[in-house]
Formats: sequence, C-alpha cells, structure tokens
Amino acid sequence: MDPSSWLLLCRTVRFGETDAAGVMHFHHLLRWCHEAYEESLERFGLPPAQIFPGPSLEMGAPALPIVHCSADFLRPLCVGDPLAIALRPELVDPGCFDVLYTFTRSGEAVARGRTRHRALSPEDRRRCPLPELITRWLEASGLAEGVRPL
Amino acid sequence: MDPSSWLLLCRTVRFGETDAAGVMHFHHLLRWCHEAYEESLERFGLPPAQIFPGPSLEMGAPALPIVHCSADFLRPLCVGDPLAIALRPELVDPGCFDVLYTFTRSGEAVARGRTRHRALSPEDRRRCPLPELITRWLEASGLAEGVRPL
Amino acid sequence: MDPSSWLLLCRTVRFGETDAAGVMHFHHLLRWCHEAYEESLERFGLPPAQIFPGPSLEMGAPALPIVHCSADFLRPLCVGDPLAIALRPELVDPGCFDVLYTFTRSGEAVARGRTRHRALSPEDRRRCPLPELITRWLEASGLAEGVRPL
Amino acid sequence: MDPSSWLLLCRTVRFGETDAAGVMHFHHLLRWCHEAYEESLERFGLPPAQIFPGPSLEMGAPALPIVHCSADFLRPLCVGDPLAIALRPELVDPGCFDVLYTFTRSGEAVARGRTRHRALSPEDRRRCPLPELITRWLEASGLAEGVRPL
Repeated sequence: MDPSSWLLLCRTVRFGETDAAGVMHFHHLLRWCHEAYEESLERFGLPPAQIFPGPSLEMGAPALPIVHCSADFLRPLCVGDPLAIALRPELVDPGCFDVLYTFTRSGEAVARGRTRHRALSPEDRRRCPLPELITRWLEASGLAEGVRPL
Repeated sequence: MDPSSWLLLCRTVRFGETDAAGVMHFHHLLRWCHEAYEESLERFGLPPAQIFPGPSLEMGAPALPIVHCSADFLRPLCVGDPLAIALRPELVDPGCFDVLYTFTRSGEAVARGRTRHRALSPEDRRRCPLPELITRWLEASGLAEGVRPL
Repeated sequence: MDPSSWLLLCRTVRFGETDAAGVMHFHHLLRWCHEAYEESLERFGLPPAQIFPGPSLEMGAPALPIVHCSADFLRPLCVGDPLAIALRPELVDPGCFDVLYTFTRSGEAVARGRTRHRALSPEDRRRCPLPELITRWLEASGLAEGVRPL
Repeated sequence: MDPSSWLLLCRTVRFGETDAAGVMHFHHLLRWCHEAYEESLERFGLPPAQIFPGPSLEMGAPALPIVHCSADFLRPLCVGDPLAIALRPELVDPGCFDVLYTFTRSGEAVARGRTRHRALSPEDRRRCPLPELITRWLEASGLAEGVRPL
C-alpha cells in the first residue's frame, strides 16, 4: 500500500471557519490537524474506536493526549479554498511521536502544524510505550527503524 | 436567593465567532446556550462535576443528553457586542425539561434559543426521572409545582 | 446530472466532536449542516466564493443569513461513526428557503437538522429575492415549479 | 490602573470543550488564548470594534493576523475546572508582538499558550507598524521601552 494513500489528504475551507477579516480564523487549523491525523489512521485501516476513548475502546488502552502543538500561518485562506494536507509522523521516543502537517493550496505552502502525542497509562497517567496499532502506522509511514522499547 | 442571580447571564461576541459576513456565525449560538445552562447551574450552587460526565461523576447518575434544539436569529451580532442572556427552564415531563434562552443587546432581543434535555438511565439509555440536583434547580427557578415522579 | 450527486454526502464523527459523555456534543450537528450545504453547492458547480462573503464575492450580492435552525438527536454518535447526510431544500418564499438534513448511520436515522436562509439586500438588510445561483441549485434539486418572483 | 486588571483573567472549562477522554480537547486552548487577548484589550479600554475587522473598523486600519501559535498541555482539564489566565505581551519588533498565556488551576500551571500577531497593511498585506491602540496596550503592560518605529 502506498503511504501517500493515508498521508496525503484534502479538505476545503468552510464559511464558518472564516472570521470578519474574511480569512480562516487561526485556531481551526489545529482542529484540522487532529482530524487529518484521525483520517490518516482510518485510511491506514485502524478504526477510530480502537484508538480513541469511547464505548468500544479496550480497557487499559493507553491514553494518547496531545502535550504540545504549534502552527505557522503563511498565507490567508478564504472560503472554498481547496487544501492538500501532507502528514509526516516523527518518532520522538518510544512513548511519544509528533505529526507534522503541511497545508498547500495549488502547490503553494499556506500553513504548517505540529501535534505531539504522548502515551500515558490509563491508571496513573505515567508515561508508557505507544499502543501497538499506532506503532504499526508509524512504521508503515517510514519510521520502522526508530521504534524501540522504552 | 434571587433567581435572576443564576438565570440572567452575560457574554461578549468574540472575533473567532464572526464569519466573513462580519457577523456571528449562527451555530455558535447553540454553544452559548449550553454554556449559559452550565453557568446557571454553577451559580445556583451545583458544581458541573456533579452533573456532567467526568472523573468525579457519581456512578449510575442519569445521562442528560440534548434531544432537540432550535434557534431564531433576529439581528446580526458583531465582535464586541455585549449580550445579556435570560434563561427560562420549562418542565416538559418528569424526565425532560427545556431551557429557553433570550439574548438581548441594549435591551433589544437579538436571538432566541431552546435546548431540550432528557434523562436517560446510563445502563440501557431508557427514560428515567431527572436527577435530584437538576430538579432542585428547576424548582428554585419557579417550576416547583410541575415536578412529579414519572 | 443526478441530484443525489450533490444532495447525498457523507462525513465521519471526529474525536474533538465528542464530549466527556463519549458521544457527539450536540451543537456540532448544526455546523455539519452548514458544511453539508456548502459542499452541496460546490458539488453542484457553484464555487463558494460566488455565494459566500469574501474577497471574490460580487459587490451587491445579497446576504443569505440563517434566520432559524433546529435539530433532533435520535441516537448517540461515537468517534469514527460514518454518517450519510441527505439534503432536501424547500422553498419557503421567493426570498427564503430551508434545507432539511437527515443523518443516517448504517441506514438508521440518527439525527435531523433544518436551516432557514433568507436573502437580504446588502445595503439595508431588507428582504430581497434569492440570488440566481441559489435558485438554480434549488430548481435542479426538484423545486423548479415553486420559484416565482417576489 | 493596575495592569493585573487587564492581564489576569479567568474562565471555566465547559462540557462541550471536553472530549470522550473526559478532558479538555486540546485545540480549545488556542481559542481561549485569543478570547483572553480580546477580553484584555476590552478591559484596558479598547473596544473590539476599533481593533478587529467589522462594520465599525476605521478604513485603512492594519490587519493583525496571527502568524504563529503554540501550546503546551501540562495537566488534564475537566468540566467545571476554574482557570486563571495570566497574559504577558512581548514585543518582537515594531510591527509584531507575542502574547504568552499561562493557565493555572488552584495555583498550579496546567497549560501554556503563545500567539504571534503581525501588523499588515490592508492594501497589499505588507508589514507595517502596529496600530497605535495596540501600542498603548503594550506600553501600559510594561513594554514601554521596547516600542520603536519600524
């Protein structure tokens, strides 16, 4: 399977995401990042219900909270703008990974985002290794060599 | 305690709530309604952690999902507009209540909202009586006579 | 062109749209409705920049604010749930239309929404006829006979 | 006037801001940052309508888009948690400033945020000096010495 099938996504700027300056209001970009991450896992074959808390999540599965995020805004985005989103996961340590997001419009980079996800044990919120499903997605995304036990 | 201390609230329109038409984007109003309902319970003396799901909620407490909502938009709202929000709870049946919200700016009604909340047992999601804390808030808000067992 | 190509859409419930009860938080549904309406116009062939305020909108184009909305929530929705959204536009009068939205999951209706859109002249915010592009979308969606001058 | 009257704010975590993990979903923090910045200007005496685009903004006023943002999440936040928000503006150059936000709960730091705002001329989106009203807020906030012409 070609990684671009789950690491290259697209979305369109919607009217409710613009503000009275006529352009996308900044914080929506971080929401787009997380939604792209969820869509990527799904396209790779991992149902959200097996990763994210909800009635179907296995007991004892690690939490994966976001501990850091950032974004850079390079160009104003208007309603209807079609965006391509390229994801690049990066392993930080065996219990932590980043996802970098590059947003382009007609081939031009318009924004960048980063989210940092850390695995925490559900009982005591201590650091723990990444869930195996996530490791599989990271490896298939080109990070095979970096994943070692904590 | 004067009911207006928990049934009359205020908030200001923020920039991220406007859209490229320069006015508040409609769906934020429903969010404002729920946040006003939460603030009202809190001002009445009910900590959110005793009503809403979270780590501190008592096991077996009924869920109170919103089963219906509506809103009417009477005037455009701009960034910085100061709004007063008047809440009027209405008992629908012993397991269900509405909250009506009237938004005014300088005394003029600018929008109205309604949310309908139904108590469901957490095990099987069947209808059940309202939690006692909510009943207390409804009674104090002037609905004493209407609250009867299911 | 088959109307279902622009009147039948889909989306997936995302993690940030759930709340601590584990299910979709109600107000996101209204956002989904408007985004479905925008996507429908786009699939029909109307670029958002020709309908919604922004740097490319023709001067003097009528505003189309939402003057009313409502929603019914029939089933709880969880992260990852795939939804189909069927849109049914309804002409209210020559300057006003509704869009009805039925959300289904595996063929079962899980929620319904309605938005009411009224054309207002940009100068004085008085009622005016619908923009011609919208009328074209309404007609093609099966409302041809109902559209008459104000 | 004591700067803490406009640089120390508070807000409460609302139910719709939690996700199915039971805690605040990360991207709301960036929204809180911008809303705190708006409230700070307002408390300092600057009406939002004189700073942010809208029908009342003076023609030719510079745009102040956010060009970068980041956040660190130190503790999980639950519905009803009362937060204090301390703002610290920092001048980057005569056309650009940061706002740093420290969120505390019962005196413990739970999250940090940063937004970077750059003045752009409305005609050609080139860099330009900060609007005078913003400079006044920055100076009063303890940055007097740093503000020099571009």
